[in-house]
Amino acid sequence: MGLDLSGNAPHRRLQESVAADMLRVDGLIRERMASEHAPRIPEVTAHLVDAGGKRLRPMLTLAAARLCGYEGEHHIRLAATVEFIHTATLLHDDVVDESERRRGRPTANLLWDNKSSVLVGDYLFSRSFQLMVETGSLHVLDILANAAATIAEGEVLQLTAARNLATDEDVYLRVIRGKTAALFAAATEVGGVIAGARQGVVRGLRHYGDALGISFQIVDDLLDYGGVSQTIGKNVGDDFRERKLTLPVIKAVHRADKKERAFWERVIERGEQHDGDLEEALEILNRHGTLEETRTEALNWADRARAALGDVPAHALRDILADIADYVVARVN
Amino acid sequence: MGLDLSGNAPHRRLQESVAADMLRVDGLIRERMASEHAPRIPEVTAHLVDAGGKRLRPMLTLAAARLCGYEGEHHIRLAATVEFIHTATLLHDDVVDESERRRGRPTANLLWDNKSSVLVGDYLFSRSFQLMVETGSLHVLDILANAAATIAEGEVLQLTAARNLATDEDVYLRVIRGKTAALFAAATEVGGVIAGARQGVVRGLRHYGDALGISFQIVDDLLDYGGVSQTIGKNVGDDFRERKLTLPVIKAVHRADKKERAFWERVIERGEQHDGDLEEALEILNRHGTLEETRTEALNWADRARAALGDVPAHALRDILADIADYVVARVN
Repeated sequence: MGLDLSGNAPHRRLQESVAADMLRVDGLIRERMASEHAPRIPEVTAHLVDAGGKRLRPMLTLAAARLCGYEGEHHIRLAATVEFIHTATLLHDDVVDESERRRGRPTANLLWDNKSSVLVGDYLFSRSFQLMVETGSLHVLDILANAAATIAEGEVLQLTAARNLATDEDVYLRVIRGKTAALFAAATEVGGVIAGARQGVVRGLRHYGDALGISFQIVDDLLDYGGVSQTIGKNVGDDFRERKLTLPVIKAVHRADKKERAFWERVIERGEQHDGDLEEALEILNRHGTLEETRTEALNWADRARAALGDVPAHALRDILADIADYVVARVN
Repeated sequence: MGLDLSGNAPHRRLQESVAADMLRVDGLIRERMASEHAPRIPEVTAHLVDAGGKRLRPMLTLAAARLCGYEGEHHIRLAATVEFIHTATLLHDDVVDESERRRGRPTANLLWDNKSSVLVGDYLFSRSFQLMVETGSLHVLDILANAAATIAEGEVLQLTAARNLATDEDVYLRVIRGKTAALFAAATEVGGVIAGARQGVVRGLRHYGDALGISFQIVDDLLDYGGVSQTIGKNVGDDFRERKLTLPVIKAVHRADKKERAFWERVIERGEQHDGDLEEALEILNRHGTLEETRTEALNWADRARAALGDVPAHALRDILADIADYVVARVN
């Protein structure tokens, strides 16, 4: 489900535009993930960091600060902060989801144990907190503290919404706004704040990050059912097996006839899943056109992200951010 | 292993001295542990909060601020912050230790699941972070961010030091300074800082909290082997079963003859434990007098805590804090 990094894609252009800053962010991440006394910490962290995520969130912070004309040093710390928070949540997510693979590697909870993932996640979260304190900006601290609470709340909500067929689209939106969009929104917002951008610009950056994050997560959830192509790839079906209520299923449950309802109750509520059930689920989703509808929603959120940039100053980086919105949904086009 | 709350004990006097403030702290804790959308959060939190801990850490913050003449409002927020951090670490500790009982009740990981404990812990940690941002003091934020990192580092160090007979007293001190003393030290220090106390006073408060926390944890670890009375009570032997290297064992391993060494290798390193092994361990600890020596170390740290208060202004609360130091070790007298 990785983004295509080849050619002249927006992600590549974003990487090139913030490459010098990003080198410094990587250096800071390496420096701060160290622990003099507990070598387990950098071992676990490096396993995840070296696997190389897309680094989309820290790049958003750097781009937001730069396009607002920032010339200082704190955007480097904030980008590292955002990546540390992201890494900490991945470690805890993999414990919660009992995942075995992440970024093409076995997860830390599998290679070490759940204990290490919980505690190293806590350590990275604390480190992120130290980094943001170093910026000396209470406004930035406020934004990131609120984002952290929203992320955790979204994760707990997801936990209680799973396996519950009563989960509706409002709850779904709240879950993904928490677990995904809150950090995207904070990442772009703090870039503007640290640059001293005026309120309207900061708001535009925040709305951009929020809509981009929502679009990103809807696409992820759609790809978990193979996208609209109905091809069952190797990563397809994780959400189904974990009995998560994501948008394509929520829409299908809403329109289920008696027989379909019984199917969803069996596989999602009771968790009695057999061979052929994923194929059956895909057939139902397709019958009601909910994969296509989900794709349309992702496109709508990408449009909103683009539109939010109307409040942001004209800049080459603004154009790249606009293209990033299209790029995120291009995975399902 | 609870503190005796009866009679005119120092803990009771401390409670009475900060009772009005503490009521407000409790109110703030109830208010902030709420979550509009994820009811699982207050359920899990209330399970732990209602069980009623000693609330020693938030009381220390209140007392430190008051004895420095503080008349503002922020000490209430800081006391709630400290209790939230403590509660978050308890939730994660119980997952890591696979504990089944806490404060006389089944643990949250047992009643709900590990997932809820991890995520609700993250939520409480974020909430603590929001509360401290509200004080507007970057100095306080710096202290608490550092404490959070030290706590997590101590926990990871404990994880890797467990089952390893090479663990020495330096490593042990580092572990308990992290997992226990760091929050005690931050609790008293931020009380002084928010009150605007001068540097020497703040340093004295910090050293007091550090030494008190170390003493407190050494006593806990000693009581886990029944104290010096060698009585095997119902809570005795948890650390032994979890193969943790605590001070009485570290001292005994250091002086082990060949046969004793083989015993420790079997029960701690390889974890092959049978009926009678705990009794055998106690006999060895007693033979080398390491329970008595551990008690002496706890008393020494309590003395250091008391001495650190020499830098703190004369005040009825200062005298109570001094008695709290004796009180913490009185559990093994």
